[in-house]
Amino acid sequence: MTQTITIALDAMGGDQSTRMVVAGADLARVRYPMARFLLFGDQAVIDPSLDRFEKLRAVAEVGHTDQTVSADAKPSQALRRGKTSSMRLAIDAVADGRADAVVSAGNTGALMAMSKIVLRMLPGIDRPAMAGIFPGLRGETVFLDLGANIECGPDNLVDFAVMGALFARAVLGIVRPSVGLLNVGVEELKGHDEVRQAGVILREADLPFDFYGFVEGDDLTSGTTDVVVTDGFTGNIALKTAEGTAQVYTEFLRRALSGSVLGRLAYLLARPALGALRDRVDPRHHNGAMFVGLNGIAVKSHGGTDALGFSNAIGVAVDAVGEGFNARITEELSRLHRGNRRTAKVAAG
Amino acid sequence: MTQTITIALDAMGGDQSTRMVVAGADLARVRYPMARFLLFGDQAVIDPSLDRFEKLRAVAEVGHTDQTVSADAKPSQALRRGKTSSMRLAIDAVADGRADAVVSAGNTGALMAMSKIVLRMLPGIDRPAMAGIFPGLRGETVFLDLGANIECGPDNLVDFAVMGALFARAVLGIVRPSVGLLNVGVEELKGHDEVRQAGVILREADLPFDFYGFVEGDDLTSGTTDVVVTDGFTGNIALKTAEGTAQVYTEFLRRALSGSVLGRLAYLLARPALGALRDRVDPRHHNGAMFVGLNGIAVKSHGGTDALGFSNAIGVAVDAVGEGFNARITEELSRLHRGNRRTAKVAAG
Repeated sequence: MTQTITIALDAMGGDQSTRMVVAGADLARVRYPMARFLLFGDQAVIDPSLDRFEKLRAVAEVGHTDQTVSADAKPSQALRRGKTSSMRLAIDAVADGRADAVVSAGNTGALMAMSKIVLRMLPGIDRPAMAGIFPGLRGETVFLDLGANIECGPDNLVDFAVMGALFARAVLGIVRPSVGLLNVGVEELKGHDEVRQAGVILREADLPFDFYGFVEGDDLTSGTTDVVVTDGFTGNIALKTAEGTAQVYTEFLRRALSGSVLGRLAYLLARPALGALRDRVDPRHHNGAMFVGLNGIAVKSHGGTDALGFSNAIGVAVDAVGEGFNARITEELSRLHRGNRRTAKVAAG
Repeated sequence: MTQTITIALDAMGGDQSTRMVVAGADLARVRYPMARFLLFGDQAVIDPSLDRFEKLRAVAEVGHTDQTVSADAKPSQALRRGKTSSMRLAIDAVADGRADAVVSAGNTGALMAMSKIVLRMLPGIDRPAMAGIFPGLRGETVFLDLGANIECGPDNLVDFAVMGALFARAVLGIVRPSVGLLNVGVEELKGHDEVRQAGVILREADLPFDFYGFVEGDDLTSGTTDVVVTDGFTGNIALKTAEGTAQVYTEFLRRALSGSVLGRLAYLLARPALGALRDRVDPRHHNGAMFVGLNGIAVKSHGGTDALGFSNAIGVAVDAVGEGFNARITEELSRLHRGNRRTAKVAAG
């Protein structure tokens, strides 16, 4: 027996919008035969795209609305005026139980604000964070917050550490993950107040994960810890800097090999290996950041991705549903709240 | 006639310390025949290293002190207690006119605090910033602050924009550089208060450079602007994330090519091209961040670099001296202060 997983899609979000969402859903359909899709958006725009994918149409339903959340809308505006927007209806579908998860490539701040109001937070968590997975030298590293919370206090960073560790356990299967706090140096006195205070709290708490201490930017890829925690401003910039560096490296490599006859010959010989390398560093393969801390599965896709990237964001949602991710996090959180963390916070405050 | 350039070196700073500093000075000696060196530190440690480099000894002098600034000393401690430290004596040599520039791989905060007190600031600038050069798709990008100022207000970011533009003009020879402010999105309402306010001031000011607006992490390497400005916390993390990503990419490439017979053959054929690529992304070739805004040339080397990296930091100092960098910045600043910027600040405040 195959269980069905229903994914609600905001069909109007992202730079390439509906076309990319529909083509991405079709790629995901092939990979996840148990998936069904609810597409929210303008039926007159969605239908022509959907007509190109006959098999997708068989497992998809359209929820019509002509309202959208624009890329530059403030979260507060989106909350007030976007109650029948494609993004909001997709989130509502999760809250109503018609869908198991929502995926959107639209406005990050609006998606977070709406998800927080509609799905609510897991017990004991103040704000959701966006968590993604970074490829590194020693496997994969969970990195958060990728941009949901621009300004964070020490308590937010501590919450992110807990959620990041739970995410690493649920998604990467690491029983006792190590967690590092991103800073400009490893010494205790480095950094601004928020990161130093979060360091004090985490060092003194008795946690179900190993707090490694401070880590630096290059620890993200060297795999020093299983989880790296930072505020959403720094996290977003670090993520995009890493993506940009990988892109420029790929281009430098192409130029280096095309610059000589030997280089071009080498390229032909090494084509399969280089293709595998390109796949490995291609940001589309790591697209899809999960909002952790919400009482429901919501995944944010990069706005500038394509169908392949969007299908991977759907994949993150399908995996999270299949793994019972939120039930696991809730269980871990309640264990924590019965236990040490509150004590530790009091001791450190 | 060759003019002599004298570089004061903190021979006790950095992870590999004296041995790396001395070997780096010897590499720099070959490249810059006009350079002479004043090495400050423990004579009993420096002398055995220096004995290995006979030609360097002929153009080097040792200033003995057994006091050092430790890597984890607070800037305030270093200021109070480090008055005869190797770092301080090297800075003093610039203030006294015995040296044209100082290079240290030691404690960044201490180097900045001491340089600020001893060398003083250029007129109209509150704090120095660390500026470096990033290799990108369309040439090079000046990036600051790389870690000198962990917490920055809007006015600091505006100062950094001015200094970054002057740096780009002096070092990269760009007459009217474009300057971007690093943020989590390009829309005006994105980011925290400091970056948004700095954006308002820069948008309204009549500046001798083009303010492009907000840029994101991947713009650092795509070359969207000639200069990218951010606070020292974000800048340090972005720099190290980029370095880490380049390292992991190099390692992935090595693994991809060594994984098959064809790959290894390709590697042999492409060896010179790949060597050139490695050089291009090697952080040692971009080592040496300049403290801009000081009334004297001070260059910070990465603490974890080697002799090759340290010689490049010396190169940055030699170039800055040769280009009359500070005289140019002072001239531009005084032109600005007679002109628009003050008006613009008032208008925006």
